[in-house]
Amino acid sequence: MALESLRYRRGSLEVLNQRLLPGQLRYERVGGVQRAWAAIRDMEVRGAPAIALLGCLSLAVELAGGAGPQEDLGALEEFVGQKLGFLLSARPTAANLGREAERLRGWVRRRAETPGVTPQELRESIIEYIEGLLEKDRRDNRSIGAHGADAILGGLPGGGPVTLLTHCNTGTLATAGYGTALGVVRALHERGALSRVLCTETRPYNQGSRLSALELRHDGVPVTLIADSAAAAAMRLHGVHAVVVGADRVAANGDVANKIGTFQLAVAARHLRIPFYVAAPSSTCDPSLASGDLIPIEERPGTELTQLGGVLLAEPGVDVWNPAFDVTPHELITGGVITERGLFAASDVCGQLAERGER
Amino acid sequence: MALESLRYRRGSLEVLNQRLLPGQLRYERVGGVQRAWAAIRDMEVRGAPAIALLGCLSLAVELAGGAGPQEDLGALEEFVGQKLGFLLSARPTAANLGREAERLRGWVRRRAETPGVTPQELRESIIEYIEGLLEKDRRDNRSIGAHGADAILGGLPGGGPVTLLTHCNTGTLATAGYGTALGVVRALHERGALSRVLCTETRPYNQGSRLSALELRHDGVPVTLIADSAAAAAMRLHGVHAVVVGADRVAANGDVANKIGTFQLAVAARHLRIPFYVAAPSSTCDPSLASGDLIPIEERPGTELTQLGGVLLAEPGVDVWNPAFDVTPHELITGGVITERGLFAASDVCGQLAERGER
Repeated sequence: MALESLRYRRGSLEVLNQRLLPGQLRYERVGGVQRAWAAIRDMEVRGAPAIALLGCLSLAVELAGGAGPQEDLGALEEFVGQKLGFLLSARPTAANLGREAERLRGWVRRRAETPGVTPQELRESIIEYIEGLLEKDRRDNRSIGAHGADAILGGLPGGGPVTLLTHCNTGTLATAGYGTALGVVRALHERGALSRVLCTETRPYNQGSRLSALELRHDGVPVTLIADSAAAAAMRLHGVHAVVVGADRVAANGDVANKIGTFQLAVAARHLRIPFYVAAPSSTCDPSLASGDLIPIEERPGTELTQLGGVLLAEPGVDVWNPAFDVTPHELITGGVITERGLFAASDVCGQLAERGER
Repeated sequence: MALESLRYRRGSLEVLNQRLLPGQLRYERVGGVQRAWAAIRDMEVRGAPAIALLGCLSLAVELAGGAGPQEDLGALEEFVGQKLGFLLSARPTAANLGREAERLRGWVRRRAETPGVTPQELRESIIEYIEGLLEKDRRDNRSIGAHGADAILGGLPGGGPVTLLTHCNTGTLATAGYGTALGVVRALHERGALSRVLCTETRPYNQGSRLSALELRHDGVPVTLIADSAAAAAMRLHGVHAVVVGADRVAANGDVANKIGTFQLAVAARHLRIPFYVAAPSSTCDPSLASGDLIPIEERPGTELTQLGGVLLAEPGVDVWNPAFDVTPHELITGGVITERGLFAASDVCGQLAERGER
C-alpha cells in the first residue's frame, strides 16, 4: 500500500506530518479547520490537490461533529463560507483550494435555496459533497496517469522504456491517491515502460529527497536522486525522454505556476529538445488570471535557506530571496498539459476545459 | 581584512577549515603534503586556485623543514615529482594543480641541470618558486577583477550599477586573495558600480550560502542568497545584468567544467539574453583536452544529498547521482572568459593564451 498523505473516514481525519519525513512516519489528528490551516501553513502537508482536500475534509469533520449553526440554513451557509475563507489565507499560490472553495460555496448556496431542505440535510449533503471530492481526486489521478503515459509513449518511436525527470513531489503525498506527475510515473511503471525516474532534491524544502524518493522506493519504482543543479546535466547525460512536473496554478493563457525551479527545468528541456509536460487536475486552471504574471507568488522565510534542522547553512542575518514558486511561460510547456480529461496544448487547456464544462 | 583561505609564511602553512563555516572560523596547521592531500580530498579547502596553492605550499613547507634527500640533485627532483603526483590524486577535475605541478616539475628538471647548482640551492629555489605562485595568484586575481569589471560595464549602456548572479564560491576562500568571479564582483563594488550580487546556495556542498555569502558580507558587499532553483526566476525578475562564474578546467575548444549547475545557469542566461562570463586564471586552460566531453568529472558520495549534519534528507539507501561538476559548451559562454590577461571569446581563450606564451 502506498504512503497516504491523508486518512479520512466520516468524522475523523489524520494528516501525515511530512515535516518529519523521511525519519519519522507520524499521522496526526485534524479535528477541524483551525488545525488544517496550521498544517497547510507549516507545510506538514503540501501539494495543491492535497491542500485542497485537507482543507475541505477538515470542514467536513467539523460539520460531522456538529459544529456551526443547527437551525438556520443561511447561518450554516455563512459558517461554511467563513471557514473556507479562513483556509484560503494559509497559502496564496495554489489554485485548487480556491477553486474548490468557490464551487462548494456556490453549491451550498443553491442547495440552501432548494425548497424544503432542512439544516440537517444541508449539513449532511455538504459532508457528502466533500467526500465526493476525495473520490474524484483519486479517480482523476488515475486518469492523469493513464493520459500521461499514453502521451509520453505516443511521442516516442519504439514505445519505451523511458527515463523521466521530475521536480518536487506530486505523488501520493501531494494528492489523496496516485499522484499527478508521479501518477504518470506510476502508470508507466505499471505498464513496464519506465526505465527510471530522476527526482530533483527540490530545495529548500527537499520535497524530492524527503518525499518523492521515499514514496517511489516504497512502491518499488526505480528512482535516482539528483541535486536541483544537476538537472540539465542529467537531461544531457542520462538520456531523459521527458520532463513531467505538477502545477499549483495554470493561468488562462497556459502559463504555469509550480515549485521554484520549474521555469529553469523547462528552459533546459527546450534547449536539449526534451518534451516538457505539466500534469495537473483541471481544477488547477484559473481562467480568471489572463497570464502567469498575475499569479501571486508566495515568498517563504529566509530561514528555510539559512538553517536546516540544527545546522547553520548561512549566517542568520544574510539577505535571502525565497520564492516558493515560479512561472513557466506556456510556450516552454512543449509536451502539453496532462489533465484527467486528456492532454492539451498549454495555451488551450483552460479554454478547452471551460468549453467542455467543468464537471 | 578579507577572510583568507590560506595563511603562509616560510616553513608554516595554515588552512581555514571550510567544512566548519559559517559556524566556526578555525585555521588548521598543514605540516606537509599528506595533510594537504586530506584537506583537498575532504574539501576543507576547495576552489581550483586554492587547491593548487595549498598543494604546492605544503610541499614548500616540507622542503623548508628539511624533508627529502639532502645530497643528491636527482633524488631531490624525484622526491618533488612523487609528492606532486600524490597531491594530484586527491581530486580529479580541477586543472590548476595539474598545470602548476607539471610546470614545477619541468622547472625543477631544468634547474637541476644548471651547472654548479647544489642540492641546497635547488631546494631553496623550489621554495621561492612556489612562493612566487602565491604572489602571482594574488596579482592575477586583481587583474581578473579589473578586466571583468571593464568587460561587464563596457557591455552596458550607462555603465551601471549592475546586478550580478554567481554560483558556488570563487572568492577569497577559493583563491589566495581577491577571487576570480568574486574578484570581478569585488572590483565592481570598489568602483561603486555594483548594485547587488545574487549568490546561489550551490547544493550539495552549499559553497554559496556557507562561503560566498559569508565572505561578501564580511567585506560589506551587498549580497542576496537564493536557492539554486531560483536562479532563472531571479534572472528574469531581479534585472540581472550578467552571470559570472569560475572554472575548474577549460578545454581547448573553450568548453568549461565548473561546479554542477553551471550548465543550466548558462542555458537560462542565454534564454533570457543575459551575458554569461567565466572568470579564471589562465592556468585553468587545458589545451591537452580537445573538448569538454574529455574532462574527467568527479562523482561525489551520495551521502552529500541524503544527509546534512545530523539531519536525514532522504532514506540512506536511495540511489543518488552526485557529480561535482558539469560542462558548459563554449557557445553558451556568451560574455567570454575573463583571465588575468584580459577577456577572450571562449573558443579562442586557450589558443590565444598559448600563442602569447604562458607566463
